[in-house]
Amino acid sequence: MRKYAVGILGATGAVGQTMLKVLAERHFPISELRLLASSRSAGKKVMFEDQELTIMEAKEDAFNGLDIVLGAADNAIAKQFKDAIVNSGAIFIDNSSAFRLDEDVPLVVPEVNKDDVCLHHGVIANPNCVTIIALTAIQALHKEATIKRMIASTYQAVSGAGVGGIRELEEQTKALSNNEEIVCKTFPYQIAYNVIPQIGGFNEEGYTSEEMKLQNEGRKILHAPDMLVNCTCVRIPVYTSHSESITMEFEKPITVERAQELIAHAEGCKLVDNPEAKAYPMPLDTSDQDLVYVGRIRKDISSDNGLTLFCCGDQLRKGAATNAIQIAEALIEKKVL
Amino acid sequence: MRKYAVGILGATGAVGQTMLKVLAERHFPISELRLLASSRSAGKKVMFEDQELTIMEAKEDAFNGLDIVLGAADNAIAKQFKDAIVNSGAIFIDNSSAFRLDEDVPLVVPEVNKDDVCLHHGVIANPNCVTIIALTAIQALHKEATIKRMIASTYQAVSGAGVGGIRELEEQTKALSNNEEIVCKTFPYQIAYNVIPQIGGFNEEGYTSEEMKLQNEGRKILHAPDMLVNCTCVRIPVYTSHSESITMEFEKPITVERAQELIAHAEGCKLVDNPEAKAYPMPLDTSDQDLVYVGRIRKDISSDNGLTLFCCGDQLRKGAATNAIQIAEALIEKKVL
Repeated sequence: MRKYAVGILGATGAVGQTMLKVLAERHFPISELRLLASSRSAGKKVMFEDQELTIMEAKEDAFNGLDIVLGAADNAIAKQFKDAIVNSGAIFIDNSSAFRLDEDVPLVVPEVNKDDVCLHHGVIANPNCVTIIALTAIQALHKEATIKRMIASTYQAVSGAGVGGIRELEEQTKALSNNEEIVCKTFPYQIAYNVIPQIGGFNEEGYTSEEMKLQNEGRKILHAPDMLVNCTCVRIPVYTSHSESITMEFEKPITVERAQELIAHAEGCKLVDNPEAKAYPMPLDTSDQDLVYVGRIRKDISSDNGLTLFCCGDQLRKGAATNAIQIAEALIEKKVL
Repeated sequence: MRKYAVGILGATGAVGQTMLKVLAERHFPISELRLLASSRSAGKKVMFEDQELTIMEAKEDAFNGLDIVLGAADNAIAKQFKDAIVNSGAIFIDNSSAFRLDEDVPLVVPEVNKDDVCLHHGVIANPNCVTIIALTAIQALHKEATIKRMIASTYQAVSGAGVGGIRELEEQTKALSNNEEIVCKTFPYQIAYNVIPQIGGFNEEGYTSEEMKLQNEGRKILHAPDMLVNCTCVRIPVYTSHSESITMEFEKPITVERAQELIAHAEGCKLVDNPEAKAYPMPLDTSDQDLVYVGRIRKDISSDNGLTLFCCGDQLRKGAATNAIQIAEALIEKKVL
């Protein structure tokens, strides 16, 4: 079996670290693993299975000989190194939002539009975490009855803001229990025992960049250019896993029973929907695994052909690292790589 | 100025304690304050302003001579003592859900339907906390453009489950920081660093009792029997103040600017809506005060004549105790008492 030379750009962040873990778990066929980060992290040692790897500085010539580069850095870094990666001959599977809406860049959730990986020109974008979790949950319903409109409110974990977000919730919780002053660095306000209804910057219509992703990326991934999405993104004091409350209007009627059946059989999903037994998705249960849990499925009592549901998924894994590695696996499966 | 003999039924709970605080703050004209609770609490001493009061056991004959009884107990206790209270000649302003939908019981948010207090037959019901906060936020918009449909997702504080909820979040947070086992008594699952998408029991259609209140109580309070409401209620690890993400469809168009103007002037509301300055409602800011903060007002990009907003309010105060005392004040103002 062929093995591949894999690079991780941004290997020291929360997503980069999760990529390392998921590559090992899934036994991805690796001939070489090259960990790249800023000069600040270069020289640090990291364990991968039983090997000690040394972080190298990300530079223009650092990508030579790689087959795949998994991008776990921010938009600026992704833009800085895109050409160097593509010119080196590697395929760049990028988790930043820099290229997601570019026409020649496929945006892929393998459970939804795996075939789109074949259309790449050197870059494939990994979607936003809220979008991946929502689409994994609802794609089977969309195939059956076509979603016309979606209204979503999110409950997003602090690790979505990286290692700094995790540390900030830990430190603030500790400071408050000791009656000490709290410090806000990663988030604009206290996040311990609070919610912050802002993730990303605001556009002119008052939506945040995070909120617009579900519509813009969702349309591209589902090949549904007219789908209407209204999203409200809220940060809450949970460490891992985003939760989403989603109401959908469909073109055709769809019963609760049929929706449950579709989700029970949908790839990447686990139906957790037995209210009487207090079985419903919760972020604690979905953390550190790859399935999106879907439950609280019920008829939307405020519309015809509507359903409402609640879903949770680990946004560092299925919402980022795992989805990127599934894209790499799809490239192998489709013999693109 | 006339003073009134006031009783509190359930004086030792989170809402009862908040009622004591709010009565003092608002200088409610009190001739006598009688604190009633279960036999377990009888004999305990409680401070009210500079007086020490003794908790008395709630019994059939404990209400004689009272003008108003503020109910801060559960449905069973409210039902047990309703007749005794009404027969004693007092007006029962009850925070339980036992009588809210009874035809001869007004259900009142003073900023919305103050006149309805005049229709009482001995009992006036205080609405559910999510309902009070939502209606205070949106009533001016409803008067202007008529809400046809509302979709809400909530972020509800642990103190909505009473003193036990507060204690449980404190103890679980402490246990987790010490690597100790957590205990779940008030909530069915761990609430620290988690969310639980269940508040109340489920009906046959899969909605919880808490979720149905916004439609059932909202219709009665707004005198809008056809308003459609789809609500998802979620418990989160916040101590005080419920937050709500609300999307509305109106009969007539209404601009964001007009909505902001209406809310800025609406009784009981504070407009906190300047995204550029990171000004939006957060539960920490609304705790221990009476206004409902409203912000993130924007056009619903998924419908015509739609708006979306985020609001927060202290559910022990405006969502319970303060609203009940405002009802008592309305009775005085309308010379019903």
